[in-house]
Amino acid sequence: MEFEKVREEDVLKLLEERKFADVRDLLKDMEPIDIAELLEEMPEEKLPLLFRILPKEMAADTFVEMDSDMQEYLIQTFSDKELKEVMEDMYLDDTVDMIEEMPANVVRRILKHTSPEMRIKINGILQYPKDSAGSMMTTEYVDLRKDMTVQDAFTRIRRTGVDKETIYTCYVVNNNRMLLGMVSVKDLLLHNYDDVIEDIMEPNVIYATTLEDQEHVAEQFSKYDFIALPVVDMEQRLVGIITVDDAMDVMEQEATEDIEKMAAIMPTEKPYMKTSVFETYKKRIPWLLLLMISATFTSMIIKHYEAALATAAILSAYIPMLMDTGGNAGGQVSVTVIRALSLHDIEYSDVPAIIWKELRVALCCGGTLAAANFVKLLVFDRLSLTVAAIICLTLISTVIVAKIIGCTLPILAKRVGFDPAVMASPFITTIVDAVSLMIYFRIATAMMPGLGG
Amino acid sequence: MEFEKVREEDVLKLLEERKFADVRDLLKDMEPIDIAELLEEMPEEKLPLLFRILPKEMAADTFVEMDSDMQEYLIQTFSDKELKEVMEDMYLDDTVDMIEEMPANVVRRILKHTSPEMRIKINGILQYPKDSAGSMMTTEYVDLRKDMTVQDAFTRIRRTGVDKETIYTCYVVNNNRMLLGMVSVKDLLLHNYDDVIEDIMEPNVIYATTLEDQEHVAEQFSKYDFIALPVVDMEQRLVGIITVDDAMDVMEQEATEDIEKMAAIMPTEKPYMKTSVFETYKKRIPWLLLLMISATFTSMIIKHYEAALATAAILSAYIPMLMDTGGNAGGQVSVTVIRALSLHDIEYSDVPAIIWKELRVALCCGGTLAAANFVKLLVFDRLSLTVAAIICLTLISTVIVAKIIGCTLPILAKRVGFDPAVMASPFITTIVDAVSLMIYFRIATAMMPGLGG
Repeated sequence: MEFEKVREEDVLKLLEERKFADVRDLLKDMEPIDIAELLEEMPEEKLPLLFRILPKEMAADTFVEMDSDMQEYLIQTFSDKELKEVMEDMYLDDTVDMIEEMPANVVRRILKHTSPEMRIKINGILQYPKDSAGSMMTTEYVDLRKDMTVQDAFTRIRRTGVDKETIYTCYVVNNNRMLLGMVSVKDLLLHNYDDVIEDIMEPNVIYATTLEDQEHVAEQFSKYDFIALPVVDMEQRLVGIITVDDAMDVMEQEATEDIEKMAAIMPTEKPYMKTSVFETYKKRIPWLLLLMISATFTSMIIKHYEAALATAAILSAYIPMLMDTGGNAGGQVSVTVIRALSLHDIEYSDVPAIIWKELRVALCCGGTLAAANFVKLLVFDRLSLTVAAIICLTLISTVIVAKIIGCTLPILAKRVGFDPAVMASPFITTIVDAVSLMIYFRIATAMMPGLGG
Repeated sequence: MEFEKVREEDVLKLLEERKFADVRDLLKDMEPIDIAELLEEMPEEKLPLLFRILPKEMAADTFVEMDSDMQEYLIQTFSDKELKEVMEDMYLDDTVDMIEEMPANVVRRILKHTSPEMRIKINGILQYPKDSAGSMMTTEYVDLRKDMTVQDAFTRIRRTGVDKETIYTCYVVNNNRMLLGMVSVKDLLLHNYDDVIEDIMEPNVIYATTLEDQEHVAEQFSKYDFIALPVVDMEQRLVGIITVDDAMDVMEQEATEDIEKMAAIMPTEKPYMKTSVFETYKKRIPWLLLLMISATFTSMIIKHYEAALATAAILSAYIPMLMDTGGNAGGQVSVTVIRALSLHDIEYSDVPAIIWKELRVALCCGGTLAAANFVKLLVFDRLSLTVAAIICLTLISTVIVAKIIGCTLPILAKRVGFDPAVMASPFITTIVDAVSLMIYFRIATAMMPGLGG
């Protein structure tokens, strides 16, 4: 349940009447992301004014939620003092995310107005590869020593906690910043003030390394129900933490990438409405071209049987139906298997069980489809028994072939190190098309000896 | 980075030698979900023994992570006392999730061994519709009163917090349990012990209502970066909370459902390997049948032009290529639009902008494909200029039609209240097939007057 929506017109009207205090009252109870979304609807020239009206403590939080075009526009209107204030109130990981989207001149201006130690931290995170744990992390976390008491820990949290993105998981390190253990604020609250951290900390900490893939990091969150995960460098020194909200964003982004790959699109990171026509074209044309060229095989097969088709032209009327059904049957299983692979529900050792299962599913599906089609072909299309039998036998065979190819190809792709998601329906459709046409003409020439072929 | 994997054989060997203390040592540092996954690999008859070997405080946590078949098997081997102990250590929402998967006789036995007040709570949650906020929530949360001090709040958390799934967000209620505000443990820690809750609480709380759809709840988590969300009933009384780990599970499940629908499968909740052949068949056959029947149109169109095809049989050789390319082009855009709809990146008002964009993308893609194909048809296939032109003109038209149908159909479906995901590639392929065949034959009969048609 969200609150009643503040309407763009109301804000603009109040701005017109210069009732700035009323605008502030309207906005002050909203969540930062909702303010950012409202501002996105506004005429660009009103943005600097509106941003200055925001209660100071909300300005940075709202800035973080804006898209990068708006951020860039605002930064260009900021005075040096304003820029400095916003930067100081932002969490480090958000600053880094923003900088990654900005043109070089804006980045220079931002870095000029951050403190030297902050600049070092920002540059530290910027050097990690995109999509690595290092690039997702923040260096703002609560660290404790093992000889502290619970009381000491609370004092430290109270003193340093304001600037930390999460304080609920605290990490215990030694003098070399090696990760020794973790203790949650829940543990701290449920122990006595004079208990020693070493006695209550959890020494077996699951952690990420800076170069680990972000997808793997997100999976750890969803598997272990963490709210934060520590990140260590090659020497096992604690360098940062990743919080659950960033893991959720990665999960969403990775699901989108998988969906795009399955639909024969090269993955993008930008939202649909922000991608230009040329960018969209570039992401779609490679697969369209490749799949079009591989459809050459189907033309070759049909040309090979041209004489047969000329004799029994009726056969060509059912090619689309056979091909579509094969494509759909193959797509169903390939997409299921690809999703199961990315959720780690199946592994390579399951292949025999999967093939055996899909074989039985294919027999059931193929049988049902063939039976329904047989009746239709005889009763409605008034075909001869022979032609109907050719079509229905092909249908069963096509479904079986499609299901088997659809389940094995993605797993094999993963086995040899390819991304299984690109082995989805479009790719499998192309293969199944060729195979089903061959089956069709083989069965037809066998059952109608006059056809030749 | 996970820890070194404990191997099944090692555990079985130690069990064989009756070195139970060593087994416990092996398992005690593992995360509950990793123990549950290890147990799944074990022979079933070893489970009760292994479960009893687990350190007592880990037993319930591990039990929660098991799949329902294993849980059912174990419950049947539990003594009444063991069952009671495990139930007492489980969080309420986990207990309810488990009960929902159990056969009636097991449910009766479970309910017999829970306390009367727990039974009332379980039945309360069970009555909410599946996939509603009410069915996701737990009733175990920390509630505060507005006249408490920070010191009082900590006392309350210390006294009652052990059994709560999260203590980091506390909810302020009045005597009628109406939700007045919330305060995070971070706020509590950063304020003085004698500050009063009313002065530091956030009175504008975003909440869910019991009947709200779980998908919408998960979206709130990902939008606002919450770690918990309160759930209120029709009278605005606080009845429970939902935690971020459950929201992540829902996100994952909803992404899987969308992917399944896009591949013309009716969504399942069970993992692939746990679904029986018949269940899989039932989820796949309806769409296969429907799509097969709608492919009747393509047969009708081809039959209508049978005479033309008999004259120029070469035309039929390119039907599969044209249809596949149309299907792929339409699938690319429909899947992109469906995903953008479910991430709320686009709305109904964006339709003109989307169509305009897709029209330009279609011209670029169609042009590239036609040019590449034209060269291939003349040089490699040695077709006449006329036939090559027919095929390439059809190709451009098909790509344009496919892109426009692919972007409008899912948005229109959503507009009239259908699920846009079922309007994905297979459905659009079927429509595009029919349209592209009509275009093909129209262009062919126009450019080759001898064809008739």
